[in-house]
Parts: sequence; C-alpha cells; structure tokens
Amino acid sequence: MKVYLIGAGPGDPGLLTIKARDVLSEADVIVYDYLANSDFLDFAKPGAEIIYVGKKGGDHTLSQEGINALIVEKAKEGKTVARLKGGDPYMFGRGGEEAEELLDAGVPFEEIPGIPSAIAGPAYAGIPLTHRDYASSVAFITGHENPDKPGSSHNWEALAKGTSTLVFFMGMKNLPHISEQLIKHGMDPDTPAALVHWGTTTKHRSMASTIEK
Amino acid sequence: MKVYLIGAGPGDPGLLTIKARDVLSEADVIVYDYLANSDFLDFAKPGAEIIYVGKKGGDHTLSQEGINALIVEKAKEGKTVARLKGGDPYMFGRGGEEAEELLDAGVPFEEIPGIPSAIAGPAYAGIPLTHRDYASSVAFITGHENPDKPGSSHNWEALAKGTSTLVFFMGMKNLPHISEQLIKHGMDPDTPAALVHWGTTTKHRSMASTIEK
Repeated sequence: MKVYLIGAGPGDPGLLTIKARDVLSEADVIVYDYLANSDFLDFAKPGAEIIYVGKKGGDHTLSQEGINALIVEKAKEGKTVARLKGGDPYMFGRGGEEAEELLDAGVPFEEIPGIPSAIAGPAYAGIPLTHRDYASSVAFITGHENPDKPGSSHNWEALAKGTSTLVFFMGMKNLPHISEQLIKHGMDPDTPAALVHWGTTTKHRSMASTIEK
Repeated sequence: MKVYLIGAGPGDPGLLTIKARDVLSEADVIVYDYLANSDFLDFAKPGAEIIYVGKKGGDHTLSQEGINALIVEKAKEGKTVARLKGGDPYMFGRGGEEAEELLDAGVPFEEIPGIPSAIAGPAYAGIPLTHRDYASSVAFITGHENPDKPGSSHNWEALAKGTSTLVFFMGMKNLPHISEQLIKHGMDPDTPAALVHWGTTTKHRSMASTIEK
C-alpha cells in the first residue's frame, strides 16, 4: 500500500517526469484531477482503475474530504495509488492537505514534483522569469485566494514594491482587480506584463503589454 | 541547426522530463554545466560530443561569453545542440542570456523547462510551499546576487513583511546575512525555517528550525 502524489506538469505530455511516468504505468489506481491534457492516462497499465475527481470552475465531482477519503480507502485495500494533479502538487495543488490526511491515516506516501504551469507557461511564451540584469527573484501568487483564510488579502504593497517578477496563477477572472491593486500600491503602470493562456498545450496563447492595459 | 536549452531538474535523474530525455538522446552535441548528477549524460547517443563548461564555486572552465560563442558555433556547423543546465534554465539559470545570444545570432532554439531545486528540494524534505491555510504565495530568491546589478539589494522589507513562503537558492554562504536582514526588517524571529542541502540527490540532507537559529 502506497500513495504517490504526482505532479503532471502544465499540459505538454513531454513535460511529465520519467519518475511520474514510471509510477503511472505501475499504479493499480489512478485518481486524477481536471488536467490540461488527458494523454497522461495513456501511461496506465491495462486493467488499472482510473477515477476522475476533478473540478473545473465551480463544479466539483467530489469534495476535498471525499477525495482524501477515497485515496486512503484505495490504499488500505493494499493498492498502489497514483494521485495525479496538474502542475506541482505542493504549489497551489492542495497536495499539502492530502499529505496531512495520509499521514494521519498512517498511509505511506511519496510526492513526485511536477513542473508548475507558472514556470512552463512563460517559458513556452519565451519569457525568462529571472535575469541577472533585471530580476533576482520571482514570486508565484494564487490568482484566487481562499476567502476563509485569516488575513486573506495579499500584501499588495510588498508585491508592488518588491523587485520580483510576479506570476499570478489562474488570475484571469481577477485580472482587473490584480492590476488595480498593484498600481494603487505603487507599481509603475508601464511595468511590462504578459498573459499566458493554456500554457504549453496545443491551445497555448500569449500576449504582452503593460499592467495598466 | 537547433539549440535546446534544457533544464535537467534538481538532481534525481527520475525528475528529468520525457522531452528532455528524448532531446538528449538525439543531440549531436551536449554542452553541460556543473550538475548535481552526471547520470543524465547516459542518455546521450553513441558518438555524441559531450562538452563540460561548468563552474563550481569560483572556478569557471569557460566564461559565459565563451559558452555563448561555443553554442552558436556548434549550431552553425549544422548540429543539434543540447545545452543542459541544472534546475530550470529560465529561473536563475542564465538561460535568458543564452536565449538572447541565440536570437542575436539567428540560431533557432527551444527551451525545455526543468523542475527547480527550490521546488523539489523542499518537496523531498516533506515541505509543501503553499497551503490553503498558511501561504497563498511563494517567492524564489537568489542567495547570491550579481553585485553589478543596479539597485542590487533585495527589497528586504517586502520580503520580510510579505505573506509568502520564501525560498533562497544557493543561500548557505549568505545564511547569517539573510536571517539578519529578514529579522531586522520585521520578520518574527520564531518564523519556521528549513535548510535543504543537495536536495533530491543521494546526498540529500535537511533540517528544520526557525530563522533566528
């Protein structure tokens, strides 16, 4: 019995790691989220049980508690479970919560990192996130925050006045709010900005502008 | 003629991407940096030219200009060049500079993202970088900055007062300075901190404490 929390990466199947592919091809059960690309499932062995627990927008097939319970149950049946998530499980992937649950349940687990879309999306759009001459740090920020978290709001002043490249995950819906907050807290409206949509997939689109526009 | 700027990931050969492995196995020339693990070179095809241009600490086998010139020269001989770098080329990897050089020289190139050690090191130490209840952003910061960069110093106040998980790359030598600056600019000395050394390799070590200790 073992659970692997696996990062599928951003969408391009070539960006899956060798280790993730090997685990997927040996797993008895694959429990997967909504993914930018379902080709990953082709690596499953014949007869593997494949369970979709994804959510897209507001529609959840299973609550997070339900997902946790399912993974623990399958593992306790003695199975090898591959829990496949987009990007990296420990960066905005709620992998930390699933890891805590597995720890509490006494189920052995291992995490396999994946390439976050926040790194590969800009890369496929030709944008280095750091550069010796321009940026010596980069910050990854969720574009939609858990409204229940105490002190929920980002420290906009720190973000606006820092010297980092800023990458907002899933920020499209909040884009006007994000730009407004950054400018209000002191960022130059002419700061270059880019949007990357469906990064690394065949639907990849990107555009460059400034934070004001 | 084509150059691939390839991220080798943090050290565990299993964390190489499928795409990177495929390109390595077809390249005529592999130009590689100091890597945490040289197993990656086993993917090279028989007869491939393998050139080490790495640097460790202060010792450089070739200057950055020399590396740039070498890659352009090999590509212009009509060869497929795999430029292999640790981690991700566009995050503290100087991949941006090499990309500019290739663009100027009119050499077609493609970047293949890798998993940064800053993500995989903490993951292998069991540390999620974000968590719905604790951190909705994460910042990656170079532990040793280019001293020639205008406005060289980090915005310590923004870092200390932000709500991000902070990950310093290659920060061991500057560790006392980093802790001191963070505390001086308002970070709680009891803030939990971890050190990860040789993350994901067989020499992996990690320890947890607070930023004061």
